[in-house]
Amino acid sequence: MKRLTYLLLFVLMASMTYAQQAKYVFFFIGDGMGVNQVNTTEMFQAEMENGRIGTQKLLFGSFPAAGIATSYSASNSVTDSSAGGTALATGSKTYNGAIGVGVDKEPLESVAYKAKKSGKKVGVVTTVSVDHATPAAFYAHQPDRNMYYEIALELPKSGFDFFAGAGFLKPATTYDKQEAPSIYPIMEEAGYTIARGLKEYEEKVASAKKMILLQAEGASADCLPYAIDRKDGDLALADITKNAIDFLTKDNNKGFFLMLEGGKIDWACHSNDPATVVKEVIDMDNAIRVAYEFYQKHPKETLIVVSADHETGGLGMGTGTYTLNLKALDYQKQSVDLLSRAMTDLRKAKGNKVTWEEMKALLTERMGFWKDLELTWEQERLLRDEFENSFVKNKVVFEESLYSKTEPLAAAAKKVMSQIAHLGWTSGSHTAEYVPVYAIGAGSQLFMGKMDNTDIPKRIAKAGRYK
Amino acid sequence: MKRLTYLLLFVLMASMTYAQQAKYVFFFIGDGMGVNQVNTTEMFQAEMENGRIGTQKLLFGSFPAAGIATSYSASNSVTDSSAGGTALATGSKTYNGAIGVGVDKEPLESVAYKAKKSGKKVGVVTTVSVDHATPAAFYAHQPDRNMYYEIALELPKSGFDFFAGAGFLKPATTYDKQEAPSIYPIMEEAGYTIARGLKEYEEKVASAKKMILLQAEGASADCLPYAIDRKDGDLALADITKNAIDFLTKDNNKGFFLMLEGGKIDWACHSNDPATVVKEVIDMDNAIRVAYEFYQKHPKETLIVVSADHETGGLGMGTGTYTLNLKALDYQKQSVDLLSRAMTDLRKAKGNKVTWEEMKALLTERMGFWKDLELTWEQERLLRDEFENSFVKNKVVFEESLYSKTEPLAAAAKKVMSQIAHLGWTSGSHTAEYVPVYAIGAGSQLFMGKMDNTDIPKRIAKAGRYK
Repeated sequence: MKRLTYLLLFVLMASMTYAQQAKYVFFFIGDGMGVNQVNTTEMFQAEMENGRIGTQKLLFGSFPAAGIATSYSASNSVTDSSAGGTALATGSKTYNGAIGVGVDKEPLESVAYKAKKSGKKVGVVTTVSVDHATPAAFYAHQPDRNMYYEIALELPKSGFDFFAGAGFLKPATTYDKQEAPSIYPIMEEAGYTIARGLKEYEEKVASAKKMILLQAEGASADCLPYAIDRKDGDLALADITKNAIDFLTKDNNKGFFLMLEGGKIDWACHSNDPATVVKEVIDMDNAIRVAYEFYQKHPKETLIVVSADHETGGLGMGTGTYTLNLKALDYQKQSVDLLSRAMTDLRKAKGNKVTWEEMKALLTERMGFWKDLELTWEQERLLRDEFENSFVKNKVVFEESLYSKTEPLAAAAKKVMSQIAHLGWTSGSHTAEYVPVYAIGAGSQLFMGKMDNTDIPKRIAKAGRYK
Repeated sequence: MKRLTYLLLFVLMASMTYAQQAKYVFFFIGDGMGVNQVNTTEMFQAEMENGRIGTQKLLFGSFPAAGIATSYSASNSVTDSSAGGTALATGSKTYNGAIGVGVDKEPLESVAYKAKKSGKKVGVVTTVSVDHATPAAFYAHQPDRNMYYEIALELPKSGFDFFAGAGFLKPATTYDKQEAPSIYPIMEEAGYTIARGLKEYEEKVASAKKMILLQAEGASADCLPYAIDRKDGDLALADITKNAIDFLTKDNNKGFFLMLEGGKIDWACHSNDPATVVKEVIDMDNAIRVAYEFYQKHPKETLIVVSADHETGGLGMGTGTYTLNLKALDYQKQSVDLLSRAMTDLRKAKGNKVTWEEMKALLTERMGFWKDLELTWEQERLLRDEFENSFVKNKVVFEESLYSKTEPLAAAAKKVMSQIAHLGWTSGSHTAEYVPVYAIGAGSQLFMGKMDNTDIPKRIAKAGRYK
């Protein structure tokens, strides 16, 4: 009986494996998205539905395979995005700061290059700059993540088919601050079409062999706007996802590998700005929905994997009571970055003579304070004290996190919002906490259980049968 | 081909299912043990090994099946231990405070009763009192977790075979504070042998039909000592586990269901006392090792499941830098509870005239401060300020958490220890964070992926084929 069972098992596995080659691979990376960011967003959605306690799953939260992964780097218990990105791209631990190179600084081969070698088209997409740590780890090999020009120069050498993001941080300045030939003509020379904004993309796409889609002229090279701040016409990850799929499947029957980063979940977590975090996670889920619609058309040949490079913020889902109040987050209408900017603008407009009533009106409009959300006396005092300090006495010390400088009163406002929601933070930086892993489709069973971040690209390569 | 595959699949599943009935079930519950408590302990172990960055897995951390579970209750986003215990015992969400009853206050049938009905012997074990929320949820049905006497009265009615824990909190006083007949003779009348301490247990076990093992006479009824505080002769979860296995397999070839709670992980997390937390997690792992040795003898018939009722403390694995310093925790020699007691004793012994030098000596001895662990000026000042306040000016305001009252200087000391280790806390109570799920053995594949806490007992019942 035992031998028969093993025989049956062998035949079955062989037939399952055959059926489950991942011709089309989507690899979504939520930068900074630890398990608590997902849990908080799903409990937020339940509260938003009808005040219900529990979870309303994200689309990717309902994927059949789910696991958790450790994220430490070779040099640090708490990884940065370059070592984290390199682990997810190449399957090797490296030191914090490294892009696609090992501890010996030798180049590592990413799963994107493996896909390319196996005949797949390849896309690399992000909501931040194309030369930023996470996307860079898939196509570049540099000893320091800040070598933006040198990273960008590797893009045309990769031969990958589709890139998208906000822009490039140092298009004509080397790491040692020398002027250098602009990367854009070099990319065009190598056969890449550069499109700035969706309108230009539409005009150029038909004749493009390889594509680099950036934000429209005049927009920031750093990042796309936060989902919570997005205006009509702004580029969104879901739009890019749709275009990437169309581009990578055009005249191509060999499949693709497409990495897409939700890069600003991390930025909002660095700011400890919880409303912006949940909207950003939902926004990545909306992009995943576009991939899912493709999966529904090719269910046996498509793999979607969703994970993260590390947790950011040490987000804690409780502050001492047995309740959360996540629906409060929905009263916040813009990111704390824009609230901070509005405060600075108000200060300038009023020639340093802003009244508390004017500031209360701004906080009511943007954060829902007083009108939709009751404040305790301690919370009101926190805001008023900081107002007196930075708007009456004009002692303005900006709070600095990795990606933003925040008016001290805006920083107080996000603390109050976290308190109201009963969320806590232990860090303004990354943590060593688990990241979630979700998968659906061909080979998704490989992503169950507990794993290390380095296992993820190896399993993707296995599912895609990359050489 | 497709039909053949399905046929093979059916035969295979049938044969696997047949092979995988869980005759012996261990269900370990680490009260308060969220995913970060496990991750922190495994990274602590790596640092202790050789200063290594990474994880040194707990035994249960190496189990092949791993998943995560949501823990909210029917009434609260953040569950208490009674609703959490009831979910893990019965598979139903209920309100915070409920013991084995639903939102309608009607009794629910726990997986322990299902096991009993299916002919299994049943054991319920904890490191806290036997009438505490988590163990109680497996055998009792009361609308309020504080009905300790009424809960204890249900124990003999359960007919379960083996109980163990610290003691009983209200052995002769009803919920409405009336004196009542002692529960002990009632239990003996129902056929239970009560043994106080391991020595008495050894004397009585041979003739016992059903057993209640408590701590030795004179020890606390509340709880076993923390692992970090344990002395020779103190009862430990690993000892109880061994005895429980022997007792439940004696003259029994029908299998057993055994729930074992590591109840004080939660207490240490309520105190935000990180050294005590990791030692307590390791201690539960040592008990799991005893179960694992049994599993190795009966691998095809044994299932071990490890999970938790909720996370406590909002433990965050990082506080702003890219490092952790978990090995620092090993310099702490006792729980902060005992440090607090030592401070109170010193105050009494010195007639309220403790010098800073004497206090520094105590903090050095118990926490490793100054000698093994360097303090920043801010940390030294925090301790010194609190010393001036509570020992010079004698303004003593004890810090109260659910299970302890702490000298303010001891509370400051544990804050400093968390800072040194780069760990943060967002709460002195429970959170809504995920709990881990680990499993090995017969039916363990049922515990992969993301689930709700209510799924766990249902899957155990399935693996055990309970009626």
